[in-house]
Amino acid sequence: MPGTATPNPSFDQVRAIEWRDGHLCLLDQRELPNRKIYLTIANVAQAAQAIRDMVVRGAPAIGIAAAYAVVLAARARYRAGAQHWREAIEADLTLLNAARPTAVNLAWAIARMRARIAAGIDGDPEPALLEEAQRIHREDVAANRRMGELGAQLLGQHVGVLTHCNTGSLATGGYGTALGVIRAGMQAGIIDAVFAGETRPWLQGARLTVWELDQDRIPAQLITDSAAAHLLKQGKVQWVIVGADRIAANGDTANKIGTYQLAITARHHGVKFMVVAPTSTIDPATETGDDIVIENRPETEVLAFQGQRHTPPEARAWNPAFDVTPAALIDAIVTERGVVQAPDRAKIAALLRT
Amino acid sequence: MPGTATPNPSFDQVRAIEWRDGHLCLLDQRELPNRKIYLTIANVAQAAQAIRDMVVRGAPAIGIAAAYAVVLAARARYRAGAQHWREAIEADLTLLNAARPTAVNLAWAIARMRARIAAGIDGDPEPALLEEAQRIHREDVAANRRMGELGAQLLGQHVGVLTHCNTGSLATGGYGTALGVIRAGMQAGIIDAVFAGETRPWLQGARLTVWELDQDRIPAQLITDSAAAHLLKQGKVQWVIVGADRIAANGDTANKIGTYQLAITARHHGVKFMVVAPTSTIDPATETGDDIVIENRPETEVLAFQGQRHTPPEARAWNPAFDVTPAALIDAIVTERGVVQAPDRAKIAALLRT
Repeated sequence: MPGTATPNPSFDQVRAIEWRDGHLCLLDQRELPNRKIYLTIANVAQAAQAIRDMVVRGAPAIGIAAAYAVVLAARARYRAGAQHWREAIEADLTLLNAARPTAVNLAWAIARMRARIAAGIDGDPEPALLEEAQRIHREDVAANRRMGELGAQLLGQHVGVLTHCNTGSLATGGYGTALGVIRAGMQAGIIDAVFAGETRPWLQGARLTVWELDQDRIPAQLITDSAAAHLLKQGKVQWVIVGADRIAANGDTANKIGTYQLAITARHHGVKFMVVAPTSTIDPATETGDDIVIENRPETEVLAFQGQRHTPPEARAWNPAFDVTPAALIDAIVTERGVVQAPDRAKIAALLRT
Repeated sequence: MPGTATPNPSFDQVRAIEWRDGHLCLLDQRELPNRKIYLTIANVAQAAQAIRDMVVRGAPAIGIAAAYAVVLAARARYRAGAQHWREAIEADLTLLNAARPTAVNLAWAIARMRARIAAGIDGDPEPALLEEAQRIHREDVAANRRMGELGAQLLGQHVGVLTHCNTGSLATGGYGTALGVIRAGMQAGIIDAVFAGETRPWLQGARLTVWELDQDRIPAQLITDSAAAHLLKQGKVQWVIVGADRIAANGDTANKIGTYQLAITARHHGVKFMVVAPTSTIDPATETGDDIVIENRPETEVLAFQGQRHTPPEARAWNPAFDVTPAALIDAIVTERGVVQAPDRAKIAALLRT
């Protein structure tokens, strides 16, 4: 991306999740950047499958998609029996909840939809639940904007940043968490260089983050994940900025595999490490990182590349999708309610009380 | 690879480099493991191209291939003019030397062939130079066997090991450096688990190491490079074992990109870090790691995968092929002349005097 490019002030044109004419539409992120295809999700089983297969991914986006899926579920259950839809929908919520284990936003969004149901709905539940899902969606975008401002204020002037995975519009309701901070920092003119780790095995960095930054005309350089230490040694990066899938009560943070290694590497070089996530990602019921279930994904994600096998037939792989960064390696957790520097249990609890 | 498999005691059936009927034959490592094709190298220009394009790769293997290429060069120059071949061949040696900048074994092998020429050859130089190239090749295999023994003695009992890139028969004259230690440790029954980093972008780990281990029926698990920290945190790995492309006089070690990050990660977890390389990889003329030229490879190695583009057309990448691990992060350098623990300038100098 040439130096003459100018940032595009709209910054959030990409929509991973849309509600159109009574249907949930998901941008199929498995096909990006080569093909931009929206899949129409007709029922809750399709939604759960889409979450499992990573048609939609990113903790906040998974939560939002699940909220809309609850609308689909309610419609179907209400049509099947207007008296018993509240009981019948529980099976759907359980199915959705089990689609992926690590990101807590999924359970959080479902709990919020369940609370809306419990608050009382007369007649057809669809309008009330759609309103709630859309509120979750809107609130997420607003939270991202706020986190962008707060995170950018921490950066300093003329900094280089490195991000991991995709935490932008594609991973959220819009704008992004870590990528929202980078967008805000670019708009404020305080970021000189953006580096993105390709994020094996699914290549969220290479396929999604670079694509989003390109859409916004933000110049960026892609690196292999293992080049991060060599990059940080050059002194070109002052902040590593990442998202989160679950933050434990003590600040330990589960995020895309490779995040922990980046945090160790950042600390080794005196580079600051920022986690950007809405408070819906904080799970007070999870005491520490040791209590977070780490999803193991299929071995073929590592053994083959877009259907093309590059390893011997007998090869085996270990493919954990996430890892846990201990709070001690995190300099700041940025949420829509405020920034927690050098996070610990007391500070996280205080944030959640605000 | 199932647990019922038993290690194959031959351990070095794969040959990356062969001299057949007066020709240099190179196993095309770009095509592995899907296709096993030997390319016949007819002249020094083809040899330089093959080294540049990574038909043959791995510091020791590059050196051996270059030694045989000098035989081809001498044959051609002698046929073109029996009186002036010694002067004419200098252009070929310069061309070969420039094929790749980081691995010192290339320069070392060429210097050895030049010394053989300087020692005096009467008439046709091919027999004498072929003998010298074959001696370099044989000595490398013997050095690898010796390093395998010495390295395995350091491991302890019932250990897990993690390796990076490919340092086996494909990267050397045969048997391997770091992979030689793993082979020796497997044969001695002291290694319980082998993990291999896939080694983006060229996937030497996924395509070559896993294939070699499979040929030897050594069970292994492939991981993405960024999963190493999460793996080490599980306590399943006691040693990270890697090769080297150049070792400076103070012990700083250039090796495949990602090695430095592994060394930081190993130290963070109290896991030991071993470099295995013949003394031909030590360059006393390079004072420290800061003096090592790091090759930047084409961006497309990161932006596309086996010719298939997975990034937007405008995307840019930074693709350093190597990084430097400071001596302070290395627990042991294993050479054919002995082991240097906690390497520094004085110990390296003492080793080279033996």
